[in-house]
Amino acid sequence: MSETTSSASVRDGGHSPLQGTYPAKAYSAQSATSGLAASSIQRRNPRPQDIQIEILYCGICHSDLHQVGNEWEGAAPTVYPCVPGHEIVGRVVKAGSAVKKFKEGDLSAVGCMVGSCGVCASCSEGLEQYCEQFPVLTYNGEDKVLGGVTYGGYSESIVVDEAFALRVPNELDPAATAPLVCAGITTYSPLRHWNVLKGQKVGVVGLGGLGHMALKFANAFGAHVVLFTTSRNKTEDALRLGAHEVVLSKNEAEMRKHAGSFDFILDTASADHDCNAYLNLLKRDGTLTLVGAPSHPMSVPAFGLIMGRRQLAGSLIGGIRETQETLNFCAENGITADIELIRIQQINEAYERLRKGDVKYRFVIDMASLK
Amino acid sequence: MSETTSSASVRDGGHSPLQGTYPAKAYSAQSATSGLAASSIQRRNPRPQDIQIEILYCGICHSDLHQVGNEWEGAAPTVYPCVPGHEIVGRVVKAGSAVKKFKEGDLSAVGCMVGSCGVCASCSEGLEQYCEQFPVLTYNGEDKVLGGVTYGGYSESIVVDEAFALRVPNELDPAATAPLVCAGITTYSPLRHWNVLKGQKVGVVGLGGLGHMALKFANAFGAHVVLFTTSRNKTEDALRLGAHEVVLSKNEAEMRKHAGSFDFILDTASADHDCNAYLNLLKRDGTLTLVGAPSHPMSVPAFGLIMGRRQLAGSLIGGIRETQETLNFCAENGITADIELIRIQQINEAYERLRKGDVKYRFVIDMASLK
Repeated sequence: MSETTSSASVRDGGHSPLQGTYPAKAYSAQSATSGLAASSIQRRNPRPQDIQIEILYCGICHSDLHQVGNEWEGAAPTVYPCVPGHEIVGRVVKAGSAVKKFKEGDLSAVGCMVGSCGVCASCSEGLEQYCEQFPVLTYNGEDKVLGGVTYGGYSESIVVDEAFALRVPNELDPAATAPLVCAGITTYSPLRHWNVLKGQKVGVVGLGGLGHMALKFANAFGAHVVLFTTSRNKTEDALRLGAHEVVLSKNEAEMRKHAGSFDFILDTASADHDCNAYLNLLKRDGTLTLVGAPSHPMSVPAFGLIMGRRQLAGSLIGGIRETQETLNFCAENGITADIELIRIQQINEAYERLRKGDVKYRFVIDMASLK
Repeated sequence: MSETTSSASVRDGGHSPLQGTYPAKAYSAQSATSGLAASSIQRRNPRPQDIQIEILYCGICHSDLHQVGNEWEGAAPTVYPCVPGHEIVGRVVKAGSAVKKFKEGDLSAVGCMVGSCGVCASCSEGLEQYCEQFPVLTYNGEDKVLGGVTYGGYSESIVVDEAFALRVPNELDPAATAPLVCAGITTYSPLRHWNVLKGQKVGVVGLGGLGHMALKFANAFGAHVVLFTTSRNKTEDALRLGAHEVVLSKNEAEMRKHAGSFDFILDTASADHDCNAYLNLLKRDGTLTLVGAPSHPMSVPAFGLIMGRRQLAGSLIGGIRETQETLNFCAENGITADIELIRIQQINEAYERLRKGDVKYRFVIDMASLK
């Protein structure tokens, strides 16, 4: 992260009415129940440290549904109109005078954050997602340049500080790369942080957008990978995606066979579920890490942690440096997301299907359809 | 741990009727409601790897109450008569022919375990408390030599494999040393395992037998130590025992001041309480470790873990090697438990007082009173 160029306008918090803006086509929700429809938004003209990106592809994350539906009203109420999208890949069409990482024509990606304080302990360590002032989210965040809220990637264009833009290696398919900057980094980061190594036994709970990336990464890291799922019909896909075994989590006898055997389990399920069943599968000193957030608090018996010095942890996306590492790792290892490409006019239908879990494994919007 | 001499009779699981026994005075409970009274038990004659200890002092742990009252009926039903006590200090009066660490006249201590499988991964690493076959507990455990259950330290004498006996440094007061092999190691071990260092901010929840040792150790490790308590009148004691600050956990404003500031918090409270309040006080990557086990599962919101990559963990006593390290550390740093010495005839009264938390901070029985 280039601190000197990146954060001045964020730090001083000042809006710049003289900045100038340009209109961009977008799909936005006008209310929690309106659905998404074509609209126009204003984007700022690039500052010296900014790049302007023509968006080619944008993934659809489960968060988009929650935010559009104002389902996080307590913690993060939705400001309408809301333009979701934080799995963005596009082409740089303008680069500010101070930009160093990009030139016009480069492919670039933008994930869940477009700013942070730049000076706290977390920012200094490249962990902007844990910024003590809270990072500026790519959509429904506080737009500290223009005022109002930030607008995400369901748009033909976005302007971001280059410090929060990723370089997309040429080897990667741009459409299938979009989900890597959210679903990808969210699973890559905890597998790295808890030091998943070759030969370890690693569990992944849930096979959705996050889970399918976790299978690919854990497999690439050389682990023996076990998928836990509630539906037997995901077995074939799981094995193709990198699992070595598939366990039906509802089957107690099957679960019991794995008691005390896992080094690490990544829990990607966001529906309410019994995490204690997974704690019991950990070895001594094993860790169960949550990246999905069930809406109700989990019930955790202390004995499940004490017997075996086990840990229950959480992890939030990943920092910019590690997101770049993820993209580079994917390029080197031929990894992208499994996607279903849609036109933006299909967005409301895609939301319905996503709500039912009917996607293998990530919808990505082809932004050419917005022209 | 001396594996070759220690575990043969445990591993083969064979009882030795020819072993021979001798009678020993003890205090035992005949039922969950009988209270404790004088009785006689049989101890085995020492095997080559055993030492026979004349017990001088035995601490009273909260576990003793639970076990005597059969309060863990589901997980560990009590076999009566029950002789509790796993904070034992005494003098070696006989040493078997293969014993290497002790000679007659030495001071020795015995904690929560008197055996383990000796061959699993945990035992191999000196973490016998996490033995995959479950360790042999000092009382109400399966006596693999004589059959029946093991009898604890409320007795004039005990015979143990030297591999599970600790050397008591001469500098230490023997009575105040007894609690170190349970309350001491239970707090020392997690502070070491999660690597508490000089200059870190460390919280201790609860000021009882465990909590008062945690204050002493965290202070000795150079941390800035904060005690969380529900009663303001513990402040003076807490400061004397090693705390630098005392926070009333019921006071939300006081709690809020410490949000996101702790590297590590050790939760010694075994009453049901809101652990989420403490999770929120952790820094990024901080850990909250439970050593007390509330009887009901805790309610843990996933967001409390995800925002800040925090960890909720548990820890169980400590291995034999680390228990010896604890005793040596205590000798070097002049640390023992704060105790109230009682005669064994006062045991039922002491139980009543312990149930009400009326002890500063550990009862220790002077076994001379049993003669």
